[in-house]
Amino acid sequence: MWGGRFAGGPADVMREINASIAIDKRLWREDLAASRAHAAMLAQTGILSSEDAAAIDQGLVAIAAEYEAGKLTEDPALEDIHMHVEHRLGELIGPAAGRLHTARSRNDQVANDFKLFVRSAIDETLERIDALEEALLTRAEEHAATVMPGFTHLQSGQPVTLGHHLMAYQGMLVRDRSRFADARARMNECPLGSAALAGTGFPIDRDATARALGFDRPSANSLDAVSDRDFVVDYLSAAALTAIHLSRLAEEIILWSSQPFGFVTLPDAWSTGSSIMPNKRNPDAAELVRGHSARIVGDLVALLVLLKGLPLAYAKDLQDDKPPLFDAHDLLSLSLAAMTGMLADLVFVPERMRAAAAAGHATATDLADWLVREANVPFREAHHIAGRAVAAAEARGAVLDALSLDELRAIDSRIGEAALPVLTVEASVASRVSAGGTAPVRVIEAIAAARAARRSDK
Amino acid sequence: MWGGRFAGGPADVMREINASIAIDKRLWREDLAASRAHAAMLAQTGILSSEDAAAIDQGLVAIAAEYEAGKLTEDPALEDIHMHVEHRLGELIGPAAGRLHTARSRNDQVANDFKLFVRSAIDETLERIDALEEALLTRAEEHAATVMPGFTHLQSGQPVTLGHHLMAYQGMLVRDRSRFADARARMNECPLGSAALAGTGFPIDRDATARALGFDRPSANSLDAVSDRDFVVDYLSAAALTAIHLSRLAEEIILWSSQPFGFVTLPDAWSTGSSIMPNKRNPDAAELVRGHSARIVGDLVALLVLLKGLPLAYAKDLQDDKPPLFDAHDLLSLSLAAMTGMLADLVFVPERMRAAAAAGHATATDLADWLVREANVPFREAHHIAGRAVAAAEARGAVLDALSLDELRAIDSRIGEAALPVLTVEASVASRVSAGGTAPVRVIEAIAAARAARRSDK
Amino acid sequence: MWGGRFAGGPADVMREINASIAIDKRLWREDLAASRAHAAMLAQTGILSSEDAAAIDQGLVAIAAEYEAGKLTEDPALEDIHMHVEHRLGELIGPAAGRLHTARSRNDQVANDFKLFVRSAIDETLERIDALEEALLTRAEEHAATVMPGFTHLQSGQPVTLGHHLMAYQGMLVRDRSRFADARARMNECPLGSAALAGTGFPIDRDATARALGFDRPSANSLDAVSDRDFVVDYLSAAALTAIHLSRLAEEIILWSSQPFGFVTLPDAWSTGSSIMPNKRNPDAAELVRGHSARIVGDLVALLVLLKGLPLAYAKDLQDDKPPLFDAHDLLSLSLAAMTGMLADLVFVPERMRAAAAAGHATATDLADWLVREANVPFREAHHIAGRAVAAAEARGAVLDALSLDELRAIDSRIGEAALPVLTVEASVASRVSAGGTAPVRVIEAIAAARAARRSDK
Amino acid sequence: MWGGRFAGGPADVMREINASIAIDKRLWREDLAASRAHAAMLAQTGILSSEDAAAIDQGLVAIAAEYEAGKLTEDPALEDIHMHVEHRLGELIGPAAGRLHTARSRNDQVANDFKLFVRSAIDETLERIDALEEALLTRAEEHAATVMPGFTHLQSGQPVTLGHHLMAYQGMLVRDRSRFADARARMNECPLGSAALAGTGFPIDRDATARALGFDRPSANSLDAVSDRDFVVDYLSAAALTAIHLSRLAEEIILWSSQPFGFVTLPDAWSTGSSIMPNKRNPDAAELVRGHSARIVGDLVALLVLLKGLPLAYAKDLQDDKPPLFDAHDLLSLSLAAMTGMLADLVFVPERMRAAAAAGHATATDLADWLVREANVPFREAHHIAGRAVAAAEARGAVLDALSLDELRAIDSRIGEAALPVLTVEASVASRVSAGGTAPVRVIEAIAAARAARRSDK
Repeated sequence: MWGGRFAGGPADVMREINASIAIDKRLWREDLAASRAHAAMLAQTGILSSEDAAAIDQGLVAIAAEYEAGKLTEDPALEDIHMHVEHRLGELIGPAAGRLHTARSRNDQVANDFKLFVRSAIDETLERIDALEEALLTRAEEHAATVMPGFTHLQSGQPVTLGHHLMAYQGMLVRDRSRFADARARMNECPLGSAALAGTGFPIDRDATARALGFDRPSANSLDAVSDRDFVVDYLSAAALTAIHLSRLAEEIILWSSQPFGFVTLPDAWSTGSSIMPNKRNPDAAELVRGHSARIVGDLVALLVLLKGLPLAYAKDLQDDKPPLFDAHDLLSLSLAAMTGMLADLVFVPERMRAAAAAGHATATDLADWLVREANVPFREAHHIAGRAVAAAEARGAVLDALSLDELRAIDSRIGEAALPVLTVEASVASRVSAGGTAPVRVIEAIAAARAARRSDK
Repeated sequence: MWGGRFAGGPADVMREINASIAIDKRLWREDLAASRAHAAMLAQTGILSSEDAAAIDQGLVAIAAEYEAGKLTEDPALEDIHMHVEHRLGELIGPAAGRLHTARSRNDQVANDFKLFVRSAIDETLERIDALEEALLTRAEEHAATVMPGFTHLQSGQPVTLGHHLMAYQGMLVRDRSRFADARARMNECPLGSAALAGTGFPIDRDATARALGFDRPSANSLDAVSDRDFVVDYLSAAALTAIHLSRLAEEIILWSSQPFGFVTLPDAWSTGSSIMPNKRNPDAAELVRGHSARIVGDLVALLVLLKGLPLAYAKDLQDDKPPLFDAHDLLSLSLAAMTGMLADLVFVPERMRAAAAAGHATATDLADWLVREANVPFREAHHIAGRAVAAAEARGAVLDALSLDELRAIDSRIGEAALPVLTVEASVASRVSAGGTAPVRVIEAIAAARAARRSDK
Repeated sequence: MWGGRFAGGPADVMREINASIAIDKRLWREDLAASRAHAAMLAQTGILSSEDAAAIDQGLVAIAAEYEAGKLTEDPALEDIHMHVEHRLGELIGPAAGRLHTARSRNDQVANDFKLFVRSAIDETLERIDALEEALLTRAEEHAATVMPGFTHLQSGQPVTLGHHLMAYQGMLVRDRSRFADARARMNECPLGSAALAGTGFPIDRDATARALGFDRPSANSLDAVSDRDFVVDYLSAAALTAIHLSRLAEEIILWSSQPFGFVTLPDAWSTGSSIMPNKRNPDAAELVRGHSARIVGDLVALLVLLKGLPLAYAKDLQDDKPPLFDAHDLLSLSLAAMTGMLADLVFVPERMRAAAAAGHATATDLADWLVREANVPFREAHHIAGRAVAAAEARGAVLDALSLDELRAIDSRIGEAALPVLTVEASVASRVSAGGTAPVRVIEAIAAARAARRSDK
Repeated sequence: MWGGRFAGGPADVMREINASIAIDKRLWREDLAASRAHAAMLAQTGILSSEDAAAIDQGLVAIAAEYEAGKLTEDPALEDIHMHVEHRLGELIGPAAGRLHTARSRNDQVANDFKLFVRSAIDETLERIDALEEALLTRAEEHAATVMPGFTHLQSGQPVTLGHHLMAYQGMLVRDRSRFADARARMNECPLGSAALAGTGFPIDRDATARALGFDRPSANSLDAVSDRDFVVDYLSAAALTAIHLSRLAEEIILWSSQPFGFVTLPDAWSTGSSIMPNKRNPDAAELVRGHSARIVGDLVALLVLLKGLPLAYAKDLQDDKPPLFDAHDLLSLSLAAMTGMLADLVFVPERMRAAAAAGHATATDLADWLVREANVPFREAHHIAGRAVAAAEARGAVLDALSLDELRAIDSRIGEAALPVLTVEASVASRVSAGGTAPVRVIEAIAAARAARRSDK
């Protein structure tokens, strides 16, 4: 393969560490598509005769059929998918196969194939995020007015609606989609034609190849094009943050389905049992989603470390770009699918949520706000009064909204009868009507706005 | 500060781990600007009397003057910058200070302040990247036709032009700028008015505050707004990849200035010596730029790990978002400035570069291409012939372009006299005229195109 | 400082990126101690006259007094702590100061100083871990028989004792201590005398310096000695895992103090409130401990990335070794102290724990085990029967141990009256007497064994 | 499998995310060995009849033969290797198979199997490190007196010997071995018998099982035992640092084999060519070793992130512990083997090394030291004089040791004729006889000492 300068073959361990076919065979579709586009361009520009071009194209189509049928036999001596294809092409069409590699190199070829793969991975990820958003919107609509405790520091803070809580995750996913879309736009330049590193003297038409493969334009600098792996890092950065968002939702599902919370019941389809404890019903899928985020972060780190300090242009280190990307893409795809299925099937237990919301004196802020609004007390002072009311309730072993007017007035005489109704959790959520607030009316508006934005995105 | 529910004060260690003023005092400008906008909005909506609003505004202006003059005294008991400001406001204007915290919470306040900071950090970073691009364009123009070895695997591959090499880095920086710009657009939503987590019942005008602070709109969901740190991750992701790009350029400067390469001389202004070895002239700045990339990657990892598995909404873990961001921003700023200065002052040694380009048989591909083009040899065969020519040159202890026509024809008789001129490094680079190729004419075009794109960006 | 080869001074940005005094001034004690040992050795070997050595020693002692009194003035032109000391020594004792740097270089000097620092950091960390173990042992002893739910997947699995649960963390800390102790033993070789990279021709006595500074021996290879930062990585690896252990305990404290769990109450000394919600009592210290683990992981990553791909010997990148180490050490120290204080003061609520243990059908395994033991049912079948009993209890809205004998026999007639007592949580924990099991008797033994092992460690 | 509480089966995506058989089938040897030990103990303690125990043991032996012959058929419905074995055992021996799971759970089973695997991985890694050390010692001995430039900051600093340089890496590997050995000692406690999380009421003999499986003792706390993955982190920490060491050596091989350096020639067996450039001879194996270090760092990060914030005891997240460990172990094994082979076959080019050593004025320190030693000049002044000599040589376009005595005396009259001989690179290395220094005599001693230490380790 490397021609006339080499006398001896590789050592066994060298062959083993060097071969990438077990990994990069996954790029066969991209490799064949790109080779067909390259050959067509070589023919259009007269670099290749039309006969050779036709033979090459038929050969590549035949190989596609073979691979689709599972007939790719891995041969470590042929190193990678590019050499497997070229070798098989030679078997099928003879010496003309040797002309396909005119005006290109494995350096631009692999950058190009891998870009095509990552672009498809982005498109698939965008669809999976979309499906999870849809599930969130559906459940949020259903529970736009369901009251639950709003936690900060995992301490009950103020009552919120479950719909509002779920819409917080939809908001994260909107940013996640935007991140993948930005990555796609930034990467969509075709490296093909950069050859080994310096471009080529053949009169190629890079615009034609770029167009044929759905790229926006050819890449601008041949040295950059063969050594650039930004598009891999961009995918992994976006994937890592999406996975971290999913880990937060997974953590909540795990908490909510624990006995002390009891906010949701996991259906059998999303639970596992124990080989020893007959009472178990475990949220394994949520735990695995949370765990997968760790591995995706590890994959991102691997890529960044890989690139650190590499001089231009191509270095073999870059062969290690694929395992982390494949791993992260598979894990994220599965995580998104599992989360979508789980969300759709979760059985919420509104009475447990409402009870928990009431239990934490969660309307103490409402009392303070009432004092500010109706009795013109500075907020800091009102906050102090409400705190004393909570302490009084605790001392009595009751929750805040069980205090009588007399008890409240004993703390501060400015508290009037009109303050009592604001202390229920339903009144509290209904009152938070500021833009982006938790009131059911706002949640319904937010769902409508999200649906409209999604329609206009498509 | 926390009012009536608390009897005892914090333990010493608790106070120590909890206080963030030593870190977040850096946000004082943002905190004061946001408080002024909040107070103005409270007055416009009638929630605050105009007298109170005026007193608060004057107080905040006075505090700004004090802090500008270095008069911020840190008090761990006041925890953070928000409490320092509020406490000082109370000293300056009395109880009316207590009304400023109406309809907001530290949760939305800190998210808002930090967003303002990160937005400024992006703007500053964009300017610094711009300056480095300018330096690269200047030097690339100067050296559009300077020949150097083009390496892959750090082995001499084909000759390239130094201008082309430098433009590869300019291309990376274009993507870096685009990444920061995307991050800026995505983050530019105002969290203020989300209050603790649920929004508020006060009739606030979030559009007004958002507008006053230069945000595109208010954030859409109060729970998300107080627990979202995506904007920090977005900054750090973009910073990590920019730093990795700089680490590659730094690695090259270190290589190029080593004695065996000798491609550049570092001026005294960018060198250091040794405390023991009088002969040393070290590229410390380049090494520090390379080293800083490691710490910035560490900062990104810290943020991702921080967020993993956190339930909604705000958790105190989020206080640890600031040290990694400040660290990465400072390191990246310094790295970009150092690289810009170094680049501008580097003394290139074209004769060493040209000699190295010729030494590696770097025009072997040109011989193979000539055989394809002029003698219609399939590329794979031509590659083999050229490889044998390299082996012959090596055996003779010469470089490829020193072989005579007879010697070449002894290898393959199809090699004609016209092949000889293509074997010089100058002819080689001049021939690579494909789009994005290394030919001087293409490099000059690329510089012009980059300049035009930069003008239209501004 | 770099002598005769340099004509011009550094650029401003160069000076800024290069100076490390703001960071490494923290090493002043180590630098002075090592310089005193070096000077003493130079005198013993006759390289330095006894007059010069005496003057140098007095000068260094004087500088120590100045620095102790806070009189170190940072001068970026003097770069680092080593140059600050040497410059000040020159001011104090004149030209003899110039002889101190004989037979050493900043390369071995900084490796040596930093090793001394890390060794102290390990010793301090070992003490802090010890204190936390002590707190765990005390609370475990107090609650050796307190019943709580044992969770897997955060689902109630089997009852355990709180003492047993706390001892699990003590076990992690034993491993943590062992990791730091291993690191200390591995690092305790003295780099001093390696000079710049190659050793020296002066007749120095490296054993003497090593002994004077408490090292086990001099390092074996001068190139390795000046470029080795394994000891920093070893500290950070051990710190990261310790911090991860603490993050798990922190997570549990956060869960346990949430209203739905209610297993512990945080005293005022370890709680914070909210600026807006008067009802809050937040476990901030636990959250910060959890958050700090993220930053410590980031610090470890920074060091590994820093070292990747560096050729021998010293490179300036290594200057970036100190910020991550200092950061991790400070964060870990504070985390351990906070956790020790929190643990000691936590108010456990045994009745909530016991109730939760009973609520999850947590003794279903005991029923299955009874069937295996007393009725010779294969475990897999017994597991199935107990699972049906749980389903029956759930259908009735009761917990398992509320089922009557008749109800149980309706599921499987082999269940006898003697099975009923095993269904209480107290009987369950008492029965798990296997080595390392949760039975109170085993917990008490485990505490005694841990105490004995600790005594023999000291 | 989970018995009577479950009515419906898992969703498809649930089954897909949950099944681990494709990964953990790699543990089949460990699973079978541990099950045999567990069954034998159950029989010894009378928990299992001797007939059942014999049937189980024969069944397990039969399964081992099947798996060895490649007859493990993966069935996602059976989830993992443990269930595959148990299911197959049932097919082979009938209901008695159900008794094997008495007094154990998958939680202690998987912890135990994985520990056995990691322990073997450590043993294999120790052997591979050993082989690389052997290769280093052999080449170091061969080149104990070969002179090369000693670099700091990749600038020529002082001459060193190649043997000394290679021994620096042997020193790193000694620490690497020690790190793996410490990890092995720390992990060698048997989790079996911890059951699900709480221990068991069956009268098991944990010492017997531990002994049978080569563990030092049973683990001390059942909750810790099932949720502990420290041993995985310990392996990965040690692997990451070893890989980073290899990345440094790989970087040097890449540099040394570049045309400008030319210090080594890679034989064909360890080189690859280019698909387009016939002149290439690429150090792919070294680049892949460098690249693999990035992925191993990513694997370590994955594990640390995975464990962060997990409450006790077992959580399904822990299933994600295996892919990073398997990946890191495979990559490190291959990296060590490739480096060992490459080192053994590298062709050093001593004349290029010697020439480079002389080219960098590398004996300037020797001149300074001579002035200190022979003319009693304070080191700082001597350093300055030598720096002026370097500047003079540079101005003349010569190297330092080409200056005449007159030229040197023009710089400082204290330089005598006796100074001239110290300016050769051979004299320089011969002079650095301090302990751990680069003088050939010291290198030979260091090799002997390393060999002696290795013998006494075995």
